[in-house]
Amino acid sequence: MSKSTIITCAVTGAGDTPGKNPAVPVTPEEIATSSIDAAKAGAAILHIHVRDPETGRATGDPALFREVVERIRDSGCDAILNLTTGEGGMLEIGVRTFGGNILAEEVSTPEQRFAHVADTQPEMCTIDMGTMNVGHNIFVNTTADVTRLAELSLEAGVMPELEVFDAGQIQFSKELLAAGKVKGPAFFQLCLGVPGGSPATAETLVYMKSLLPPDSEWAAFGLGPQQFPMVAQCVISGGHARVGLEDNLYLESGKLAPSNAAMVEKAGQIITLLGNNVASPEEARAILSMTAV
Amino acid sequence: MSKSTIITCAVTGAGDTPGKNPAVPVTPEEIATSSIDAAKAGAAILHIHVRDPETGRATGDPALFREVVERIRDSGCDAILNLTTGEGGMLEIGVRTFGGNILAEEVSTPEQRFAHVADTQPEMCTIDMGTMNVGHNIFVNTTADVTRLAELSLEAGVMPELEVFDAGQIQFSKELLAAGKVKGPAFFQLCLGVPGGSPATAETLVYMKSLLPPDSEWAAFGLGPQQFPMVAQCVISGGHARVGLEDNLYLESGKLAPSNAAMVEKAGQIITLLGNNVASPEEARAILSMTAV
Amino acid sequence: MSKSTIITCAVTGAGDTPGKNPAVPVTPEEIATSSIDAAKAGAAILHIHVRDPETGRATGDPALFREVVERIRDSGCDAILNLTTGEGGMLEIGVRTFGGNILAEEVSTPEQRFAHVADTQPEMCTIDMGTMNVGHNIFVNTTADVTRLAELSLEAGVMPELEVFDAGQIQFSKELLAAGKVKGPAFFQLCLGVPGGSPATAETLVYMKSLLPPDSEWAAFGLGPQQFPMVAQCVISGGHARVGLEDNLYLESGKLAPSNAAMVEKAGQIITLLGNNVASPEEARAILSMTAV
Amino acid sequence: MSKSTIITCAVTGAGDTPGKNPAVPVTPEEIATSSIDAAKAGAAILHIHVRDPETGRATGDPALFREVVERIRDSGCDAILNLTTGEGGMLEIGVRTFGGNILAEEVSTPEQRFAHVADTQPEMCTIDMGTMNVGHNIFVNTTADVTRLAELSLEAGVMPELEVFDAGQIQFSKELLAAGKVKGPAFFQLCLGVPGGSPATAETLVYMKSLLPPDSEWAAFGLGPQQFPMVAQCVISGGHARVGLEDNLYLESGKLAPSNAAMVEKAGQIITLLGNNVASPEEARAILSMTAV
Ligand SMILES: [Zn+2]
Ligand SMILES: [Zn+2]
Ligand SMILES: [Zn+2]
Ligand SMILES: [Zn+2]
Repeated sequence: MSKSTIITCAVTGAGDTPGKNPAVPVTPEEIATSSIDAAKAGAAILHIHVRDPETGRATGDPALFREVVERIRDSGCDAILNLTTGEGGMLEIGVRTFGGNILAEEVSTPEQRFAHVADTQPEMCTIDMGTMNVGHNIFVNTTADVTRLAELSLEAGVMPELEVFDAGQIQFSKELLAAGKVKGPAFFQLCLGVPGGSPATAETLVYMKSLLPPDSEWAAFGLGPQQFPMVAQCVISGGHARVGLEDNLYLESGKLAPSNAAMVEKAGQIITLLGNNVASPEEARAILSMTAV
Repeated sequence: MSKSTIITCAVTGAGDTPGKNPAVPVTPEEIATSSIDAAKAGAAILHIHVRDPETGRATGDPALFREVVERIRDSGCDAILNLTTGEGGMLEIGVRTFGGNILAEEVSTPEQRFAHVADTQPEMCTIDMGTMNVGHNIFVNTTADVTRLAELSLEAGVMPELEVFDAGQIQFSKELLAAGKVKGPAFFQLCLGVPGGSPATAETLVYMKSLLPPDSEWAAFGLGPQQFPMVAQCVISGGHARVGLEDNLYLESGKLAPSNAAMVEKAGQIITLLGNNVASPEEARAILSMTAV
Repeated sequence: MSKSTIITCAVTGAGDTPGKNPAVPVTPEEIATSSIDAAKAGAAILHIHVRDPETGRATGDPALFREVVERIRDSGCDAILNLTTGEGGMLEIGVRTFGGNILAEEVSTPEQRFAHVADTQPEMCTIDMGTMNVGHNIFVNTTADVTRLAELSLEAGVMPELEVFDAGQIQFSKELLAAGKVKGPAFFQLCLGVPGGSPATAETLVYMKSLLPPDSEWAAFGLGPQQFPMVAQCVISGGHARVGLEDNLYLESGKLAPSNAAMVEKAGQIITLLGNNVASPEEARAILSMTAV
Repeated sequence: MSKSTIITCAVTGAGDTPGKNPAVPVTPEEIATSSIDAAKAGAAILHIHVRDPETGRATGDPALFREVVERIRDSGCDAILNLTTGEGGMLEIGVRTFGGNILAEEVSTPEQRFAHVADTQPEMCTIDMGTMNVGHNIFVNTTADVTRLAELSLEAGVMPELEVFDAGQIQFSKELLAAGKVKGPAFFQLCLGVPGGSPATAETLVYMKSLLPPDSEWAAFGLGPQQFPMVAQCVISGGHARVGLEDNLYLESGKLAPSNAAMVEKAGQIITLLGNNVASPEEARAILSMTAV
C-alpha cells in the first residue's frame, strides 16, 4: 500500500569540499567504497563524479571513472550507476568581470563530456538542462550542447536524469521530449537552493512539479541545510530523494556527516517515518521504467 | 479608489524583427517617433534599444542612444526613459556546439554596456539578473558583471529595473538588495515566455510574486501571443504591464501590430476594462518611489 | 487556432438586489427578456433563478420557473438553460446566535429543490457542493442532500454544474464522481469572493484548478468588483466565464450595469482582447460534452 | 540558530474512536494522564475534549472539563491547556436528507459552548471559523456564533486558536481580526484532510499560508495517514505541528498508536531530523506572544 521512494546518493560532487569534510571521497577507491556503503545503506542510485587523486579537484578523466565503475561493479553492488556529464561545463570566472581574457576553450564539447559514459555504459547519466550562473561562475549548457548530450545518451541507451535548476530548464526539457531527443517517461532532478537557481522551498516544489509532464518521475534535493527537509518534501509531494556529500557536508547543524552512508540512512529514517518504503535498485528500475542492464 | 497600472512600452528590442513587421522602428528618428507616440497612447515608461540604421541589427552605440534620447526629450515627452544595458551581453552561438572557436571578447564589459546610460542619464535602465540560454544563444550576465552594473547605476543615480526570467534570478536580486548594491524598494520586470525562461502563466506569476521582497513594485510581460493575457494577469495580481514590438509583433492573432502606440492603447483598454487606471508618468514616478529628474 | 470561452450569464440570482439596481429582472417576463438579450450579446449559458413578482424575493415556485423557461424557448433562443437548485437551501439566521428558535423546516428537501428542474427539463442545473456560511446565514447542502440532488439530475438527464466555493467542496465533488453519482467529464463553477468562501484571486484559481479532475471543464466568477478581473483570469487559465446581475450590480466602478446584456458584452470584449473567441451555444455543448436537447 | 516547532497534542477528540484504539482516553483520569504523558514527551500545547465515562461519547459537560484541567494542573504539568469549544456544534444528521425533522435545539449557544472555558480559565481555546459539512453531519459555526465566541474569549483573556478547514474560513478570520474581535498576532490551526475540508497536501499548505496575516503563527495537521507527513510539511513551511489520537489512530500503517505520548515522540523525531527543536511550553508562550498564567 505504501509508496516506495528512491534515494539517490550524490557521492562526492565537484565542489571544493575535500578539505571541509574528511569524509568526502577523493580517490577512485574511496569513491567506490563510499558508494558501495551508501548502496548498502539504502541508495538505489549512485550519482558519481571523480576527482584528481593528487589535487582533490573534480575532473572528467575517463580512466578514473572507469576505475570507480569497475570497483563498484566488482563488489557485486547492483545500485543504478548515474555518472555526471557536468564536468567540463563550468566556466570558472570567479569575481572577474567579462571582457577579453576568457576563452571558451576552457569549456568541453558534448563528446568530451560524454566520453566516460560511452566508455563505461552506466544505466544512467545526468544532463544539465541549461546555462546559468552557479555562484560566481557560468555553468555552460547551451541548447546545442544539451541536445547533443541527449542524442549521445539515446544512442548509447543510457537513461538521462534531467537536472533542472529553474522553470526555464523544465520548459527546454519538454522541447527535447517533444522532439524525441529524450524518451519519456522522463526522470527529472529538481536541484534547489543552488546560488543562481530556485530556492529549496515548498512553494518551488509545488510550482515546478506543476510544470512536469504528467507521466514523469522526479526527485529533488536542497543544498546544504535544506537537504533533509527536501527529502521530507519529496516524500510528501510524491517524488524521490537525493542526499550525499556532493550537496551537503553536515548530518545536522554543527555536525559533519561521517559518511555518505550516514546521510542515506538518515534519509531512509525520514522516508519511513513519513510512511513510505525505501526503494531497492530493482524497484527503482521498475518505477523509472528502465530495463535492467 | 481604483489602482493605477503603469504601462511600459518596449519599443524595438534587439531581435531580428524589422523584416517581420514594418512597424518595428530602426533609425533613431523612427525609434524616437514611435516612443513619443507610445507615450501619447499611455506608456509612462519607454524601454529603449537602438539599431544600426544600415543593417537594422541591435547595437550599443552611445551616439545612437543619445540621438534617440535627445529627440524624445526635445519633443516635450515626459515619459520615464528606460535604456537597456543588455546590448553586448548576448554570446551568439546558434546551433554550434561548444569547443574552441568561441571567444569571450564577443561579450562586452559592464562599463561598455553602461556607457550610453552614463552618457545620457535617463531615469531608469534595465539590469538583467543572470546568465541563461536565450534560444540558441547565451545571454551572459555573470554575478560579477551584474554587480558592477548595479554599482554603476547606483553611482549614476539611475533606477534599475531588475529583469528576471526565472526564480533563481530573483534570489540573486535579493542578494544585491541585501548587499546595498540595489536600493529598495526595487522594481522587478518578470520576463515570461522567453525560450529558456519561465513560461507566461498564472502559475508562474503567483510563484514569482511570492518570492519578491514585500515592498517591491513589479511588472511582467509575456512573449508573443501571451503579451495581452499577461497585461490582464498583471492587473489582477497587482503588478504593472509591458507591451511593445520588442516582445510581440501582432496586435491580435494573424494581424501585425501597426505601431507601438496601438499596442499601448490595447493594453490601456484591458487595464480600464478590468477597473484600473493607466498611470501617467508622474503617477509612475510616485508609485516607484522615484524622484523626477 | 484560438480557444473558445463560454460565457454564462447569471441573470438575477436570489439576493436582495432589485432595489439596488433597477435592471435586476423580477417578473418572469423581465427575467426571460433579460435572458434572451444576454444570449444575443453572447451568453451561451443562462443561469436562472426566479423571484416573487410581488415582493421581488427569490422563490422556488415551479410555475414561475416554467413561465421563464417557456418564454425563453418560445423566443427561439437556443442558449443552454441552467436552473438553480439552490432555492430552499438558505437557512436565514442573520445575526442571531443559535439555540432553540430555529427550525430546519425552513430548509427544503432535495426533491423540493429539484421540482422545477424535473418539471421543465432544462439542459443544466446547478448543484451546490457543500454547507457553508454565506454572510450571516447558512447555505445548507448536506452530503445526503447533495448526493440526492446528483441522483435526481442523473435520472432526469440534466447535466449538473458543480458549484464550489472552497477546496473542500471540490474534494466532495470528486467523491460523487468516483461513486458514479455525477458523470464525467464534469463541469465546475468556482464561485469566488463570496463572504464565507475562497477569495477571488489568481492564487485561489491556480490552487483550485490544480485540484480538479484533469478531464473537467470549469468556469469561475468573482463577486462584485472582482467580476471582470475573474473573466480575464479564466481566459488566461483556460476556463470559462460567468457574469451577470446575480454576482455584481456595476458595469464599472460607480456605474450601475444597465442590463445583463451589457455585462455579457463587456465580458466578450475582454475575451476577444485576450485572444479567445466567445463560444456559441453549439460550441458550448461540444466543449462540455453535452448532447443537444 | 535552529527554529523551535511547537507540538500540540490533540488528546482524544470527539470521534467515535474509543472502540477502535484502546489507547483513546475516555475518563477524566485517563484524559489527564494521557495529556500529562504527552507533555512529558514534548507537547507544549494540550488540546482537550472530554467524553462521557459511561458511553465514551464526546460531551461538553463542564464538570468533566474541570476534573481534567485540575488533574493536569495538580500534576505540575506546565503545558498550555487548549480546550475545545466545538462541543455542541455538530448537528448530527447522518445520511438523512433534510426536511422537517431536525431541530436546531440540538445545537448549543455560544455561551453553552464556552461555559467550561469560562469555568476553568485555560490559556487557550479553539474557535472553529465556519459552518461546513463534516462527513455526513453539519458542523454549525455561524458568523454570529463565531463572533460571540471570539468576544467571550477576549473578555475571558483566553487566547483563541483559530481552526480553519478551508480558505473561506481564513477570510472570515481576517474579518474578525480587522473588527478587533480577535487580537493579533493570531494563531491559526489549518485542519486538513477532513472530509468536507481542504486536502492535506503541500499545495493546500502553500496556498493557505499565503492567505494568513503576515504576523500570524500557524500550525497544521493532516487527518489519519497524513498526520506525520503534515508534521514534516509544517517544519519545512515554518509552521507548528499537531498530532494525537483525535486525528489519527495509527503510529504507522497497520500499527495502532499505543499512546498520545508515542505520537508526540514520533513528531519530535521528525522535527529534529529536519533540523528544528521541539519547543518547550515556555518557548511556545513566547512564540505565540502569550503571557504565562
Ligand atoms: Zn553532480
Ligand atoms: Zn529590452
Ligand atoms: Zn445562482
Ligand atoms: Zn478538537
